[in-house]
Amino acid sequence: MGGSAAAGKSVDGGGRAAQRVPVPEARPFLDTFRANLKETFFPDDPFRAVVRERGFGRRAAAALRYFFPFLEWAPAYRLGTFKSDLIAGITIASLAIPQGISYAKLANLPPILGLYSSSVPPLVYAMMGSSKDLAVGTVAVASLLIASMLGAEVSATENPALYLHLAFTATFFAGVIQASLGILRLGFIVDFLSHAAIVGFMGGAATVACLQQLKGMLGLEHFTTSTDLVSVMRSVFSQTHQWRWESVVLGCGFLFFLLVTRFFSKRQPRFFWVSAAAPLTSVILGSLLVYFTHAENHGVQIIGNLKKGLNPISVINLQFTPPYMMLALKTGLITGVIALAEGIAVGRSFAMFKNYHIDGNKEMIAIGTMNILGSFTSCYLTTGPFSRSAVNYNAGCKTAMSNVVMSLAVMVTLLFLTPLFHYTPLVVLSAIIMSAMLGLIDFPAAVHLWHVDKVDFCVCAGAYLGVVFGSVEMGLVVAVAISVLRVLLFVARPRTTVLGNVPDTNVYRRMDQYTTARAVPGVLVPRVDSPIYFANSGYLRERFTRWIDEDDERTSAKGETGVQYVVLDMGAVGSIDTSGTSMLDELKKTLDRRGIQIVLANPGSEIMKKLDSSKVLELIGHEWIFPTVGEAVAECDFVLHSHKPGMVADGASHENMV
Amino acid sequence: MGGSAAAGKSVDGGGRAAQRVPVPEARPFLDTFRANLKETFFPDDPFRAVVRERGFGRRAAAALRYFFPFLEWAPAYRLGTFKSDLIAGITIASLAIPQGISYAKLANLPPILGLYSSSVPPLVYAMMGSSKDLAVGTVAVASLLIASMLGAEVSATENPALYLHLAFTATFFAGVIQASLGILRLGFIVDFLSHAAIVGFMGGAATVACLQQLKGMLGLEHFTTSTDLVSVMRSVFSQTHQWRWESVVLGCGFLFFLLVTRFFSKRQPRFFWVSAAAPLTSVILGSLLVYFTHAENHGVQIIGNLKKGLNPISVINLQFTPPYMMLALKTGLITGVIALAEGIAVGRSFAMFKNYHIDGNKEMIAIGTMNILGSFTSCYLTTGPFSRSAVNYNAGCKTAMSNVVMSLAVMVTLLFLTPLFHYTPLVVLSAIIMSAMLGLIDFPAAVHLWHVDKVDFCVCAGAYLGVVFGSVEMGLVVAVAISVLRVLLFVARPRTTVLGNVPDTNVYRRMDQYTTARAVPGVLVPRVDSPIYFANSGYLRERFTRWIDEDDERTSAKGETGVQYVVLDMGAVGSIDTSGTSMLDELKKTLDRRGIQIVLANPGSEIMKKLDSSKVLELIGHEWIFPTVGEAVAECDFVLHSHKPGMVADGASHENMV
Repeated sequence: MGGSAAAGKSVDGGGRAAQRVPVPEARPFLDTFRANLKETFFPDDPFRAVVRERGFGRRAAAALRYFFPFLEWAPAYRLGTFKSDLIAGITIASLAIPQGISYAKLANLPPILGLYSSSVPPLVYAMMGSSKDLAVGTVAVASLLIASMLGAEVSATENPALYLHLAFTATFFAGVIQASLGILRLGFIVDFLSHAAIVGFMGGAATVACLQQLKGMLGLEHFTTSTDLVSVMRSVFSQTHQWRWESVVLGCGFLFFLLVTRFFSKRQPRFFWVSAAAPLTSVILGSLLVYFTHAENHGVQIIGNLKKGLNPISVINLQFTPPYMMLALKTGLITGVIALAEGIAVGRSFAMFKNYHIDGNKEMIAIGTMNILGSFTSCYLTTGPFSRSAVNYNAGCKTAMSNVVMSLAVMVTLLFLTPLFHYTPLVVLSAIIMSAMLGLIDFPAAVHLWHVDKVDFCVCAGAYLGVVFGSVEMGLVVAVAISVLRVLLFVARPRTTVLGNVPDTNVYRRMDQYTTARAVPGVLVPRVDSPIYFANSGYLRERFTRWIDEDDERTSAKGETGVQYVVLDMGAVGSIDTSGTSMLDELKKTLDRRGIQIVLANPGSEIMKKLDSSKVLELIGHEWIFPTVGEAVAECDFVLHSHKPGMVADGASHENMV
Repeated sequence: MGGSAAAGKSVDGGGRAAQRVPVPEARPFLDTFRANLKETFFPDDPFRAVVRERGFGRRAAAALRYFFPFLEWAPAYRLGTFKSDLIAGITIASLAIPQGISYAKLANLPPILGLYSSSVPPLVYAMMGSSKDLAVGTVAVASLLIASMLGAEVSATENPALYLHLAFTATFFAGVIQASLGILRLGFIVDFLSHAAIVGFMGGAATVACLQQLKGMLGLEHFTTSTDLVSVMRSVFSQTHQWRWESVVLGCGFLFFLLVTRFFSKRQPRFFWVSAAAPLTSVILGSLLVYFTHAENHGVQIIGNLKKGLNPISVINLQFTPPYMMLALKTGLITGVIALAEGIAVGRSFAMFKNYHIDGNKEMIAIGTMNILGSFTSCYLTTGPFSRSAVNYNAGCKTAMSNVVMSLAVMVTLLFLTPLFHYTPLVVLSAIIMSAMLGLIDFPAAVHLWHVDKVDFCVCAGAYLGVVFGSVEMGLVVAVAISVLRVLLFVARPRTTVLGNVPDTNVYRRMDQYTTARAVPGVLVPRVDSPIYFANSGYLRERFTRWIDEDDERTSAKGETGVQYVVLDMGAVGSIDTSGTSMLDELKKTLDRRGIQIVLANPGSEIMKKLDSSKVLELIGHEWIFPTVGEAVAECDFVLHSHKPGMVADGASHENMV
């Protein structure tokens, strides 16, 4: 978008030199298209490192290093680094084991799947991922969504084999979609879920997960399949005589223990490992308690038998036949995108803390591949949960090797230690889930939203209520719809202001912000703070017309002459489309009929190009386009004062003048 | 949004006065909310006339006059006006009769419905509508959509009664939705279909309607139910032996006649009535031809018996029971919004030609009521078609009375003249439809789009191809999706530029447009041309970081010192949300780590409020916020040059200085 020759000058009838705004040379469409494509999809120029190399062999090696970052950090690996990663890995493994089993139950899947999902995916991530702090694992929200969406059509209790295979298929589709978004560099789509919507949605999902645990905590046999608050409350309170005091006591006790350790670790950050070790401790304590009191004969449900051995291959179990394939595809699409959003956000946050850079699209390919390979090895949807990554970070991880350590620890558990979980009571898992979920409900963030931007607070509240009173999918739809609607409203009703002159200067400022700015008699200076295109051109045309009408009413009441010049400040108009140029065309004709001259100030190069090719530039006249508002108003003022008052009302005389 | 006290000055350590940017007083949330609500939904302040009156009786009368505009123009009606309206009314009636019958066949409805639909709805519009030029009638696109959507589930040939009742029900729902959009003042939703998308969609629908007529023109018995080009061509060319030469000759003959008259009227605008009278002439000629040659016995299909009498009441026939109610609702929603978009566009265009104003939302209520009452009286979906309104305008209509005249003419036809259409061959109706449709394919508009904005051309082409090769609904979905995607992309990838100083001035201009502008050493001046919020804050943060990196690479290659100040020009940033303020927060911290000071220039009042309430203002420091880029760079320059080169690399010394 190069400029043309230096801004030319033109002399008008009054003999004053006026600086012209240059119209840029037309660049071939392909050039502009390629530049825009690059800016949209490759703004961070990721292949710079590859392109810089010479020769095919070196380029291939650079490309391989690009897609498999471990080839960069592995050769430089030192023992000291390994010590840090070992500690971090053991710490997150102690969290992964109880959390994995718990979340698998949340997804109505066999508990062993939680362990499988912490063994293979972390290895894939360690090879392909860019973040040094992200710890791979399953997440509560995705588990909840899987239970909710698959459970709507296939019952986990009546048809467990099909349900399981659909979960793998959904994970496969999720991985494919995630990797595709990364390859097609459509990562910016994930940006469209605003932070406010995510806070509300996550809070709502966490609340729902807690409500689900009431079944385990109260030891109820029959429970509603719906997730919303009303159904759950009705289910709980209509069965008060069925509550088992053993479950309640045990559950509340462990929940209290977990909450206390979490609170303590928050107050004393040096003791972060206390809350990290608490879940595994609860599991061990609970198992011992049940073992010695034989509580499983008193109605306390336990995990029971967990198969020994590593992940079985599940690629043959993927369901690609209708009618269930569409269900798996839909589930995979939704859970995949949500899990991706969390993983990317986590990766970026820690990269910013530690001041290194990660390529969002490359991360998506890594996470997608992780899930595809996971679906082949009996794992379900994984990503980088924030809580686990935070523990990883606090435990001092240095590279993604911590994920490898965690994976090995979990594999050891799978091979030798699964009998230890036989007597673990389910209430302990419920308590673990509840304590983790309470951490996801980010009340301070919601309060902050209320103070800073009340519309964002409404977005947050809408998403939360949608999940809690409707369903998880409904809450997600509400969150996305409100986010997109907000974007559309931003552009459909752009901010417009009128500028006024700061006395004794030729500076023009917004009159609603700078109280010293004064309007110039006979000249209206509106300013639009957004691109002008189809979504707002109709509104803007009516807005301008209304301004002129209001100004006319005001000045005729005072007996002054009305507006004769409209100086449109285009400084903030980033781009304009054909609806926008038509609108300016119509506005020009409307103002001509009223005897008002339209003037444009400070249009950008893109605007000038469009005005030129749509002939609006010709219509308005290049001499009525100025680089600044000051020069434009000075010209109008000059014209206004060099005519007798009687002549200025005639639109024709304006056009003959220059 | 009032400003605080006049912009204060502060004196920094260097002794230079710096003008501060004022932070506006906090207004109560409800005030701002109410103002925003008014601006979004009532930008044109429509109830000004009502509120101005005093007393309940006068206000009630004013409100009645607002909703029933005929109460305003009817008392002032003169005989001269009536003469113009009479001529216009007769002219459009001569068009309404053949077009009504044709379009009803397009919708697979009994032809008499076309006449019913031109008798009651125009009366309603004359009472409630604001446009003086709009002529009410059925439209080809809506008829096509009705056939396509209802026909997918209910066959018009096997179940005509149900099909008919569903058409009425769909019209009812369309009317309800249209009136609701008007009452809730959601009219701006209609703006979201960009002009380019409409050109493409209408062109595609017109092409499909022409293709459908091949059945009538070739006299085929069996024809595909699909509307796409491939299916139609296959159906046509697989039955070449079934083509009836009588139909082909007759059809081509009349089509040629209609096209010639249309072409002639275009060249000689004074003879507009020639092309307006041509359809009715064709009908009469065709009927006579068939009557005298008894061509109906030679395989030429004719209309047959048309019932005499006015519209039967159909309110009892409306289908509100599942499963068909949802079908009618969906059809009504889609056809209603499309018909509304056309009617509003037509009303606005003519209002602009003739320089009067119409309230879009009030028009929607009028059109909605027209359809609701129409569904009670055996009419199907009507709106204000452009072609008929153009004829009305050319024929010299003065008020909506022309619609009343047309309605009376059609009623007379219904009561006495229907037997005249008994022998009308269907090929004549096909020829009428084809000639009208060829007028809807706006090739010049598409060429104009190609020249002005190639992305808009792609939108247009996408919508066209979607309709022609997919289906009408698919084309509509493509058109809406591309339009919304374009809006989202506009905001997700905003224009960003770097400003440079025009030598010997303190003016800063875009370096890519003004070739004389030069970069200031040590100071980077980026500018964002859009609001900063969740959809683009991630992109912007990476963009800024990349600019700084590129600048560092360039300057280190030359051996100069890198960027020490980033002066962000916020002049075009209309608004900012919590994601935006978080981004600035992160950017500040990232730049601090690199020893770069961030400075803000020219933030608006809205921005200042958000920066203040999110504490980012405190973080950056109010002394680093300036009203213009010039003042900001001057301050940085001053600081840069009053330090020895060795000191400026230390970020800490910057913070201690002011």
